[in-house]
Amino acid sequence: LRRKSKDIQKLTQGILNGNKTDLSQAITLIESQSKRHTEDIKTVISTCLPYSNKSLRIGITGVPGVGKSTFIEQLGLLLVNQGHKVAVLAVDPSSSVTRGSILGDKTRMEKLVQHPQAYIRPTASGESLGGVARKTRESILLCEAAGFDILLIETVGVGQSETAVHSMTDFFLLLKLAGAGDELQGIKRGIIEMADAIVINKADGENIQAAKKAKVEFNRALHMYPSKSNGWTPKVKLASALKNEGIENTWNMLSDYFTKVKSNGFFKEKRSSQNKFWLTQTIEDSLKKEFYQNENIKAEFPEVLEKIHSQELSPFEAADYLLNKAKS
Amino acid sequence: LRRKSKDIQKLTQGILNGNKTDLSQAITLIESQSKRHTEDIKTVISTCLPYSNKSLRIGITGVPGVGKSTFIEQLGLLLVNQGHKVAVLAVDPSSSVTRGSILGDKTRMEKLVQHPQAYIRPTASGESLGGVARKTRESILLCEAAGFDILLIETVGVGQSETAVHSMTDFFLLLKLAGAGDELQGIKRGIIEMADAIVINKADGENIQAAKKAKVEFNRALHMYPSKSNGWTPKVKLASALKNEGIENTWNMLSDYFTKVKSNGFFKEKRSSQNKFWLTQTIEDSLKKEFYQNENIKAEFPEVLEKIHSQELSPFEAADYLLNKAKS
Repeated sequence: LRRKSKDIQKLTQGILNGNKTDLSQAITLIESQSKRHTEDIKTVISTCLPYSNKSLRIGITGVPGVGKSTFIEQLGLLLVNQGHKVAVLAVDPSSSVTRGSILGDKTRMEKLVQHPQAYIRPTASGESLGGVARKTRESILLCEAAGFDILLIETVGVGQSETAVHSMTDFFLLLKLAGAGDELQGIKRGIIEMADAIVINKADGENIQAAKKAKVEFNRALHMYPSKSNGWTPKVKLASALKNEGIENTWNMLSDYFTKVKSNGFFKEKRSSQNKFWLTQTIEDSLKKEFYQNENIKAEFPEVLEKIHSQELSPFEAADYLLNKAKS
Repeated sequence: LRRKSKDIQKLTQGILNGNKTDLSQAITLIESQSKRHTEDIKTVISTCLPYSNKSLRIGITGVPGVGKSTFIEQLGLLLVNQGHKVAVLAVDPSSSVTRGSILGDKTRMEKLVQHPQAYIRPTASGESLGGVARKTRESILLCEAAGFDILLIETVGVGQSETAVHSMTDFFLLLKLAGAGDELQGIKRGIIEMADAIVINKADGENIQAAKKAKVEFNRALHMYPSKSNGWTPKVKLASALKNEGIENTWNMLSDYFTKVKSNGFFKEKRSSQNKFWLTQTIEDSLKKEFYQNENIKAEFPEVLEKIHSQELSPFEAADYLLNKAKS
């Protein structure tokens, strides 16, 4: 026992010294389903917590094929060359289906992955969104304790993972392509509304005209939303990650954003409300889980639904009945 | 005790006979805060439940000044004259603030209120949205048991009450005015997305041109949303409630909708999913309420938030801690 606690101490110290192997090992513990690992990692997290919270957290989303990996690699390379330490994490609760679309294939960022100031971590997979979100939040914390000052959190542009990533990042960047036809067709409105910026990627060669047109349309779409409480107007930019064009321009925009929200207090305010969100979200998820996994409830729920359907019970009577059952 | 149960039986029988005085008394019991009244009304609701579920439930929303009362009165008069029995209810959890804006002033529907086949009930006020929603759902049920076959559920176009009304009606109608400037400015996007139809009211006299222009713009806005699962394309109509123009046209559209969704099964499907929504919503609200009103939690919550703020606890550690506290 003595020895194990010594190992944990060593691991923690390694993280605080910026050792990437130790960081990887700790994130593996975070992702582990084993109860002992969960206990071990709690100590690591507690010790690292005071050293966290210091990075810029940037969420990046976009549907498969939009060029996320290339974009992130170029942005990452720009930043490490400026002296930053960059960590790339991914949130993808559905990764068993989309495997390969999101950081699975590390070789897609082969230059960045070899850079000493960069750290790339593929996603934890095959889990509930709540579980993945918690693991990602905890991984963020360890990356920060390890001295990474810019975090790029990638997610695929499908499903609910955007909301999770939006709730754990300071800036939310949506990558788009200039497509044929109506630019606004088929976009999840909620995602556009969350975006602090839209970058239209692959704006090169024959795509240039379409990209410029898309820029106008997205600008119009963004202006239909009420202005954000942070005083930031969402921007639309063009880029070609493949040709390394528009990346520096994107970073300048991000810098402007951070200067603005750090000086007007919104940066701190947002993190504080995100913390409160994760606190209440975790509590409420846990309360629901406990209720619906209660043996009495599992046994009676289908029957109760049937009684609502046949108008023997109103939904409210049914709720009262089940709430009582959960306690008996 | 014997006598009381006899009274309750009489009250229930009155409702089933379509007696409006009994219906009003029962709704007053629904709205009462007294524990004894709550017990009494449970019996009434249980007995009425099998006779409910038979009306068309139409949600109507719009900001103050849009002419809701006049519109509802004209639509109501059209329907009672066609032989329907029409009940008008209102959802307004904020009514202590907006008093007068929503059914408070009955005289605004003075013709309809006097019609034997109409029933108008002002809103329960000064309550949580969850509480008001439950009371409204229960009032709907009693109105249906009393033989009202068309229910108009009014709400003001501000806040969250739209979502509640949307979740308890078959059709959601948004009333708008043709204003100056950009028609899409300042509209809550979520409300537009919920609408099965937008009716531009006060489309008369000098307003006609602006109303026609607004119609084009709203049509464009509606088409930006993904099409609805029921196969219904939201419509935009012009009306002038004051001049009784466009009301019959609106009703024809509603009739088309109901014919369509009744034949394709969506009508039943939607009610069934609404029932499930209210079941789980009531359960989850109750679980949260119990947790946050727990004395241990109330005592420690501010302190725990402070510890998250000062990075002594992560939101997840804090959640685990509080969840344990609630059980001790």
